[in-house]
Amino acid sequence: MSNQELSESGACCSPLVREPLTEDWAGDLARMFKALGDPVRLRLLSLVASHAGGEACVCDISETFDLSQPTISHHLKVLRSAGLLDCERRGTWVYYWVVPSALQQLSAVLLTEGGPVVPSETCAAEVPA
Amino acid sequence: MSNQELSESGACCSPLVREPLTEDWAGDLARMFKALGDPVRLRLLSLVASHAGGEACVCDISETFDLSQPTISHHLKVLRSAGLLDCERRGTWVYYWVVPSALQQLSAVLLTEGGPVVPSETCAAEVPA
Repeated sequence: MSNQELSESGACCSPLVREPLTEDWAGDLARMFKALGDPVRLRLLSLVASHAGGEACVCDISETFDLSQPTISHHLKVLRSAGLLDCERRGTWVYYWVVPSALQQLSAVLLTEGGPVVPSETCAAEVPA
Repeated sequence: MSNQELSESGACCSPLVREPLTEDWAGDLARMFKALGDPVRLRLLSLVASHAGGEACVCDISETFDLSQPTISHHLKVLRSAGLLDCERRGTWVYYWVVPSALQQLSAVLLTEGGPVVPSETCAAEVPA
Protein backbone atom coordinates (compact mmCIF):
# COMPACT_ATOMS: atom_id res chain seq x y z
CA MET A 1 0.00 0.00 0.00
CA SER A 2 1.46 3.38 -0.94
CA ASN A 3 1.75 6.32 1.43
CA GLN A 4 -0.71 8.16 -0.75
CA GLU A 5 -3.32 5.42 -0.36
CA LEU A 6 -2.72 5.29 3.36
CA SER A 7 -3.09 9.03 3.60
CA GLU A 8 -6.31 9.05 1.62
CA SER A 9 -7.83 6.21 3.59
CA GLY A 10 -7.46 8.30 6.72
CA ALA A 11 -6.59 5.11 8.58
CA CYS A 12 -2.88 5.69 8.51
CA CYS A 13 -2.10 8.27 11.06
CA SER A 14 -3.57 7.14 14.32
CA PRO A 15 -0.89 7.80 16.94
CA LEU A 16 0.96 4.61 17.86
CA VAL A 17 0.22 5.24 21.52
CA ARG A 18 -3.53 5.01 20.84
CA GLU A 19 -3.74 1.53 19.32
CA PRO A 20 -1.31 -1.18 18.21
CA LEU A 21 0.11 -0.59 14.73
CA THR A 22 -0.91 -3.12 12.10
CA GLU A 23 1.87 -5.23 10.61
CA ASP A 24 1.51 -3.61 7.16
CA TRP A 25 1.49 -0.09 8.48
CA ALA A 26 4.45 -0.79 10.76
CA GLY A 27 6.37 -2.03 7.72
CA ASP A 28 5.63 1.15 5.75
CA LEU A 29 6.53 3.38 8.67
CA ALA A 30 9.70 1.45 9.49
CA ARG A 31 10.95 1.99 5.94
CA MET A 32 10.56 5.74 6.36
CA PHE A 33 12.03 5.83 9.87
CA LYS A 34 14.97 3.71 8.72
CA ALA A 35 15.72 6.29 6.03
CA LEU A 36 15.76 8.94 8.76
CA GLY A 37 18.03 6.80 10.95
CA ASP A 38 21.22 8.32 9.59
CA PRO A 39 22.63 11.72 10.62
CA VAL A 40 23.72 12.67 7.11
CA ARG A 41 20.32 11.84 5.63
CA LEU A 42 18.54 13.77 8.36
CA ARG A 43 20.70 16.82 7.74
CA LEU A 44 20.21 16.47 3.97
CA LEU A 45 16.44 16.30 4.41
CA SER A 46 16.55 19.34 6.66
CA LEU A 47 18.80 21.29 4.28
CA VAL A 48 16.52 20.55 1.34
CA ALA A 49 13.36 21.40 3.32
CA SER A 50 14.72 24.61 4.79
CA HIS A 51 16.39 25.79 1.58
CA ALA A 52 15.04 28.88 -0.15
CA GLY A 53 11.92 27.88 -2.05
CA GLY A 54 11.71 24.55 -0.21
CA GLU A 55 13.88 22.75 -2.73
CA ALA A 56 17.54 22.25 -3.51
CA CYS A 57 19.92 20.41 -5.80
CA VAL A 58 23.16 18.66 -4.86
CA CYS A 59 24.94 21.79 -6.09
CA ASP A 60 23.22 23.81 -3.33
CA ILE A 61 24.07 21.53 -0.42
CA SER A 62 27.23 19.57 -1.20
CA GLU A 63 29.55 22.18 0.33
CA THR A 64 27.88 21.61 3.73
CA PHE A 65 29.19 18.02 3.81
CA ASP A 66 32.63 16.54 3.62
CA LEU A 67 31.24 13.91 1.27
CA SER A 68 31.45 13.29 -2.45
CA GLN A 69 28.52 14.24 -4.67
CA PRO A 70 27.87 10.56 -5.53
CA THR A 71 27.61 9.78 -1.80
CA ILE A 72 25.22 12.66 -1.26
CA SER A 73 23.21 11.56 -4.29
CA HIS A 74 23.02 8.07 -2.84
CA HIS A 75 21.60 9.37 0.44
CA LEU A 76 19.12 11.55 -1.45
CA LYS A 77 18.05 8.46 -3.39
CA VAL A 78 17.41 6.55 -0.14
CA LEU A 79 15.23 9.42 1.10
CA ARG A 80 13.40 9.47 -2.22
CA SER A 81 12.88 5.69 -2.23
CA ALA A 82 11.35 6.02 1.23
CA GLY A 83 8.88 8.59 -0.08
CA LEU A 84 10.32 11.44 1.98
CA LEU A 85 11.71 13.44 -0.94
CA ASP A 86 10.59 13.94 -4.50
CA CYS A 87 12.69 15.28 -7.33
CA GLU A 88 12.78 16.56 -10.88
CA ARG A 89 15.63 16.98 -13.34
CA ARG A 90 16.03 20.49 -14.72
CA GLY A 91 18.92 20.95 -17.09
CA THR A 92 22.15 19.82 -15.44
CA TRP A 93 20.77 19.26 -11.97
CA VAL A 94 18.18 17.22 -10.15
CA TYR A 95 16.12 19.30 -7.72
CA TYR A 96 14.72 17.77 -4.54
CA TRP A 97 11.95 18.81 -2.18
CA VAL A 98 10.33 17.14 0.81
CA VAL A 99 7.00 15.33 0.55
CA PRO A 100 5.05 17.13 3.28
CA SER A 101 2.42 14.39 3.60
CA ALA A 102 5.12 11.84 4.45
CA LEU A 103 6.57 14.01 7.25
CA GLN A 104 3.04 14.74 8.46
CA GLN A 105 2.23 11.01 8.65
CA LEU A 106 5.36 10.30 10.68
CA SER A 107 4.77 13.29 12.93
CA ALA A 108 1.15 12.26 13.50
CA VAL A 109 1.97 8.66 14.32
CA LEU A 110 4.40 9.81 17.04
CA LEU A 111 1.93 12.12 18.74
CA THR A 112 1.25 11.42 22.38
CA GLU A 113 -2.30 12.45 23.06
CA GLY A 114 -3.46 14.13 26.21
CA GLY A 115 0.03 14.96 27.38
CA PRO A 116 2.54 12.62 28.94
CA VAL A 117 1.69 8.93 29.20
CA VAL A 118 2.00 8.28 32.91
CA PRO A 119 2.38 4.61 33.77
CA SER A 120 -0.18 3.42 36.25
CA GLU A 121 0.34 0.82 38.95
CA THR A 122 -2.06 -1.65 37.27
CA CYS A 123 0.57 -4.16 36.25
CA ALA A 124 2.45 -3.88 39.51
CA ALA A 125 -0.58 -5.33 41.28
CA GLU A 126 -0.69 -8.29 38.90
CA VAL A 127 2.73 -9.71 39.65
CA PRO A 128 4.32 -10.85 42.87
CA ALA A 129 6.36 -8.07 44.49
CA MET B 1 23.88 15.80 25.15
CA SER B 2 20.97 13.83 26.56
CA ASN B 3 17.40 14.08 25.29
CA GLN B 4 16.46 15.55 28.61
CA GLU B 5 19.00 18.34 28.28
CA LEU B 6 17.90 19.01 24.74
CA SER B 7 14.31 19.14 25.85
CA GLU B 8 15.05 21.52 28.69
CA SER B 9 17.16 23.83 26.55
CA GLY B 10 14.13 24.34 24.31
CA ALA B 11 16.50 24.37 21.33
CA CYS B 12 15.86 20.82 20.33
CA CYS B 13 12.54 20.69 18.63
CA SER B 14 12.58 23.21 15.86
CA PRO B 15 11.01 21.46 12.86
CA LEU B 16 13.65 20.27 10.41
CA VAL B 17 11.87 22.09 7.61
CA ARG B 18 12.42 25.42 9.37
CA GLU B 19 16.21 25.44 9.68
CA PRO B 20 19.05 23.00 8.99
CA LEU B 21 19.62 20.50 11.80
CA THR B 22 22.90 20.82 13.65
CA GLU B 23 25.30 17.89 13.38
CA ASP B 24 24.92 17.00 17.08
CA TRP B 25 21.15 17.14 17.06
CA ALA B 26 20.99 15.15 13.81
CA GLY B 27 23.10 12.46 15.50
CA ASP B 28 20.78 12.26 18.51
CA LEU B 29 17.68 12.17 16.33
CA ALA B 30 19.13 9.60 13.94
CA ARG B 31 19.77 7.22 16.86
CA MET B 32 16.10 7.41 17.81
CA PHE B 33 14.82 7.15 14.24
CA LYS B 34 17.11 4.19 13.61
CA ALA B 35 15.55 2.40 16.57
CA LEU B 36 12.14 3.02 14.97
CA GLY B 37 13.36 1.75 11.61
CA ASP B 38 12.29 -1.81 12.25
CA PRO B 39 8.69 -3.09 11.96
CA VAL B 40 8.93 -5.32 15.02
CA ARG B 41 10.29 -2.53 17.19
CA LEU B 42 7.63 -0.13 15.98
CA ARG B 43 4.89 -2.62 16.80
CA LEU B 44 6.48 -3.33 20.18
CA LEU B 45 6.61 0.36 20.99
CA SER B 46 2.99 0.73 19.93
CA LEU B 47 1.88 -2.31 21.93
CA VAL B 48 3.61 -1.03 25.05
CA ALA B 49 2.26 2.50 24.61
CA SER B 50 -1.31 1.43 23.90
CA HIS B 51 -1.41 -1.27 26.58
CA ALA B 52 -3.71 -0.79 29.55
CA GLY B 53 -2.05 1.63 31.93
CA GLY B 54 0.49 2.68 29.31
CA GLU B 55 2.96 -0.02 30.25
CA ALA B 56 3.58 -3.68 29.57
CA CYS B 57 5.99 -6.51 30.21
CA VAL B 58 7.25 -9.13 27.74
CA CYS B 59 4.65 -11.46 29.26
CA ASP B 60 1.89 -9.12 28.03
CA ILE B 61 3.06 -8.81 24.44
CA SER B 62 5.06 -11.87 23.46
CA GLU B 63 2.03 -13.78 22.17
CA THR B 64 1.49 -11.08 19.50
CA PHE B 65 4.80 -11.97 17.86
CA ASP B 66 6.17 -15.17 16.40
CA LEU B 67 9.46 -14.39 18.10
CA SER B 68 11.26 -15.72 21.15
CA GLN B 69 11.19 -13.75 24.40
CA PRO B 70 14.97 -13.11 24.18
CA THR B 71 14.49 -11.61 20.70
CA ILE B 72 11.66 -9.43 21.95
CA SER B 73 13.75 -8.42 24.95
CA HIS B 74 16.59 -7.49 22.60
CA HIS B 75 14.31 -5.20 20.58
CA LEU B 76 12.96 -3.64 23.78
CA LYS B 77 16.53 -3.00 24.87
CA VAL B 78 17.28 -1.20 21.58
CA LEU B 79 14.24 1.02 22.12
CA ARG B 80 15.34 1.68 25.68
CA SER B 81 18.92 2.49 24.65
CA ALA B 82 17.51 5.01 22.18
CA GLY B 83 15.59 6.70 24.99
CA LEU B 84 12.18 5.77 23.60
CA LEU B 85 11.23 3.35 26.38
CA ASP B 86 11.97 3.24 30.06
CA CYS B 87 11.59 0.24 32.31
CA GLU B 88 11.54 -1.08 35.84
CA ARG B 89 11.88 -4.58 37.25
CA ARG B 90 8.99 -5.69 39.46
CA GLY B 91 9.27 -9.24 40.77
CA THR B 92 9.68 -11.65 37.87
CA TRP B 93 9.11 -9.22 35.05
CA VAL B 94 10.51 -6.01 33.65
CA TYR B 95 7.82 -3.45 32.83
CA TYR B 96 8.24 -1.00 29.97
CA TRP B 97 6.56 2.30 29.12
CA VAL B 98 7.18 4.92 26.46
CA VAL B 99 9.08 8.12 27.21
CA PRO B 100 6.53 10.69 26.01
CA SER B 101 9.09 13.51 25.73
CA ALA B 102 11.12 11.43 23.26
CA LEU B 103 8.13 10.80 21.00
CA GLN B 104 7.13 14.45 21.33
CA GLN B 105 10.61 15.58 20.23
CA LEU B 106 10.53 13.33 17.17
CA SER B 107 6.98 14.37 16.32
CA ALA B 108 7.87 18.05 16.68
CA VAL B 109 10.96 17.84 14.52
CA LEU B 110 8.92 16.32 11.68
CA LEU B 111 6.24 19.01 11.73
CA THR B 112 5.72 20.87 8.49
CA GLU B 113 4.64 24.36 9.37
CA GLY B 114 2.04 26.32 7.50
CA GLY B 115 0.79 23.34 5.56
CA PRO B 116 2.43 21.66 2.60
CA VAL B 117 5.85 22.85 1.48
CA VAL B 118 5.22 23.82 -2.12
CA PRO B 119 8.40 24.05 -4.20
CA SER B 120 8.76 27.39 -5.91
CA GLU B 121 10.28 28.01 -9.31
CA THR B 122 13.21 29.97 -7.81
CA CYS B 123 15.86 27.36 -8.55
CA ALA B 124 14.45 26.56 -11.96
CA ALA B 125 15.28 30.09 -13.04
CA GLU B 126 18.88 29.67 -11.89
CA VAL B 127 19.82 26.76 -14.11
CA PRO B 128 19.73 26.35 -17.86
CA ALA B 129 16.49 24.77 -19.05
